[in-house]
Amino acid sequence: MTQQLTDLADHLDATDPLAHVRDRFLLPEGVVYLDGNSLGPLPAAVPPVLEDVVHRQWGTDLIRSWNTHDWWQAPLRVGDAIGALIGAAPGQTVAGDSTSVQLFTALSAAAELRPDRPLLVTDPEHFPTDRYLADSVGRLHGRQVRRVAPADLPEFLDEHGDQVAVISYSPVDFRSGELHDVAALTRAAHRVGALALWDLCHAAGAMPVHLDDLGVDFAVGCGYKFLSGGPGAPAFLYAAERHHDSWRTPLSGWTGHAEPFGLQADYVPAPGIARARIGTPPILSLLALEAALTAFDGVDLAQVRAKSLSLTGFFLRCAEELLAPEGFEAVTPAEPEIRASQVSLRHPHAYGLIQALAAQGVVADMRAPDILRFGVNALCTSHHDVLTAATLLQRITSAGDYDPVPQEPGTVT
Amino acid sequence: MTQQLTDLADHLDATDPLAHVRDRFLLPEGVVYLDGNSLGPLPAAVPPVLEDVVHRQWGTDLIRSWNTHDWWQAPLRVGDAIGALIGAAPGQTVAGDSTSVQLFTALSAAAELRPDRPLLVTDPEHFPTDRYLADSVGRLHGRQVRRVAPADLPEFLDEHGDQVAVISYSPVDFRSGELHDVAALTRAAHRVGALALWDLCHAAGAMPVHLDDLGVDFAVGCGYKFLSGGPGAPAFLYAAERHHDSWRTPLSGWTGHAEPFGLQADYVPAPGIARARIGTPPILSLLALEAALTAFDGVDLAQVRAKSLSLTGFFLRCAEELLAPEGFEAVTPAEPEIRASQVSLRHPHAYGLIQALAAQGVVADMRAPDILRFGVNALCTSHHDVLTAATLLQRITSAGDYDPVPQEPGTVT
Repeated sequence: MTQQLTDLADHLDATDPLAHVRDRFLLPEGVVYLDGNSLGPLPAAVPPVLEDVVHRQWGTDLIRSWNTHDWWQAPLRVGDAIGALIGAAPGQTVAGDSTSVQLFTALSAAAELRPDRPLLVTDPEHFPTDRYLADSVGRLHGRQVRRVAPADLPEFLDEHGDQVAVISYSPVDFRSGELHDVAALTRAAHRVGALALWDLCHAAGAMPVHLDDLGVDFAVGCGYKFLSGGPGAPAFLYAAERHHDSWRTPLSGWTGHAEPFGLQADYVPAPGIARARIGTPPILSLLALEAALTAFDGVDLAQVRAKSLSLTGFFLRCAEELLAPEGFEAVTPAEPEIRASQVSLRHPHAYGLIQALAAQGVVADMRAPDILRFGVNALCTSHHDVLTAATLLQRITSAGDYDPVPQEPGTVT
Repeated sequence: MTQQLTDLADHLDATDPLAHVRDRFLLPEGVVYLDGNSLGPLPAAVPPVLEDVVHRQWGTDLIRSWNTHDWWQAPLRVGDAIGALIGAAPGQTVAGDSTSVQLFTALSAAAELRPDRPLLVTDPEHFPTDRYLADSVGRLHGRQVRRVAPADLPEFLDEHGDQVAVISYSPVDFRSGELHDVAALTRAAHRVGALALWDLCHAAGAMPVHLDDLGVDFAVGCGYKFLSGGPGAPAFLYAAERHHDSWRTPLSGWTGHAEPFGLQADYVPAPGIARARIGTPPILSLLALEAALTAFDGVDLAQVRAKSLSLTGFFLRCAEELLAPEGFEAVTPAEPEIRASQVSLRHPHAYGLIQALAAQGVVADMRAPDILRFGVNALCTSHHDVLTAATLLQRITSAGDYDPVPQEPGTVT
């Protein structure tokens, strides 16, 4: 049985059109890294760029680098590079700040574009920061937040749609890896005159996203998961061009001013997406992200999606053959149309098992109370990585070679 | 006359107790850098730390570094390191985000601590982002913003003090380099029950600041000027401990939650300053800032202040002897008590002169329309640097060796 799986992994890796892209990452020896959906691995392009940014740009050229190395335009330049990965034509995406800050901006802007609608609607299972920021924006803008499961959203909108300013959801359930239907939910929102905001943290770089084509209004996402921009890499914000004349941002920092160096008395927002710039951006982290994005050069996101599905499909097969007998239950959907770039397995000793895997060089993470979560990144994960992880997990579990301690949350999504 | 100045520079540099600290910076050959109040130079401690952070921490240890290299506590750890430079006992300062975002947090929190007071008061000559954010917070919290010059503030508070929620000022006029009286204005605010917020961008690391002793309520500042943390280095926020039970932050990101890994449904703010954490911080930029702060190890801020005054005093003397005859007017006060760590000179061809200086290796900046601004950093500027700049400026001006083009704003404060 395992020989069959080995042969299959051999075949799938040998015919993988993205196999060569793995060399664009500096993966540590002896580690199978299946946590790129928390923190992407180090792209080989990053260290030489950072070396240049630190020594030549900052150290030698000093303040002049804002112009000579065009630090000034980096938030828009990097934004456009991310835009190319999420179906956004240039001029609609800015990079900077954190996802939380970008969520605050997008939700505030959306609320102000629908001033007479009292409801902000979000997912009860949304990543916490999305829920917390929705509550905060609701409070500051005098709106109420309703938490409605994606499956119930169309019905909710049928009933209360004229009260809804914006729906705020993610394409990916970060626990289960189930995909929600961005197209259908965006349409449902628009049918009732609401706006649609999508959090792409677990989607950007992992699959094609078609923001422009789907008519999405706002989107946000982080730079450190599938974009591999480094720990805490700047986030991004997309605002559809049709809102550019009318949207208002709450964080009216000087770099988003129409004349940032004019030192004017009053805030006049820059045209377009530039008004979502806030303060001076963290250039080291931002230019590391820019370098990291070159790992996508010449890579077709349809290929990324195909390989991601191949990896997760293979993982699910390994899980069925090797892990189901050990008491693991696959949480991630088998249907490829609704499967994101991760495999989540349920086991009561998730925490101890993830620790035992890590001790033997397979890095994944867990979500309380009982989910083992394995992210695959089509740019640098192989089918053999998947097989190694599944085989080791089977061996550890069957041997009882782990500490069945109570789960303890502890890492960063 | 110039020989006298040279002898004086020799003497002052030879007897400078901070002379050895200059070696903690990697200053480029052939450059006199007097723009550290826009972007501090590269501390020697930064490159090896970044190398380690990128290759070993991110590249090799990957996601585990949140724990094993304690990335998680970095915002609080770096915050305390900055706190030590601004008179803040530990546990009151957090590092992260940009000054603009921190201003938004501090102003919002202050407004909510004084719910019945309709006025936010700020400086009409404040750095633009401070004014813009005050307007935005006023709008979102239903308050009015009044712009009152520091000199008029005591009288304004006598008349309208019971209406004032918070005063928001900087100790330093970023154009002229004049110091405002933090102690007196904070007292004046407190006398009428208002809170005091100080923007320390041009003060932190340049002079002693006594936040705790003066009873300041909130303070913010950037990491990239006198703290030399690198381009766009994370900013900081100070909130006095006495507010920690009651303050509320608008940007309720997950990292500021009491149980950030608990994935709870509702936001419960962390105790203390930690609730001012927002999203995942840009670790590369944040740890570069942390390394940069080691340039202050063993350095007494009273010595920093004494040397800064020696440098600016010497600059003013050079200006009087060499530059006044060429039509330059000193804008920075001669009185040391009210002089910050810069010298600003007025000349109608400020822009062209700053360009001509830069072409010959003396880097300073200008503020529209007619201010040449020279920052001195006591950690790495020498009296000979000052003399070189003044002598070159005298030579360029008397020879007419510059382009008398109209001023054109263009660099970052």
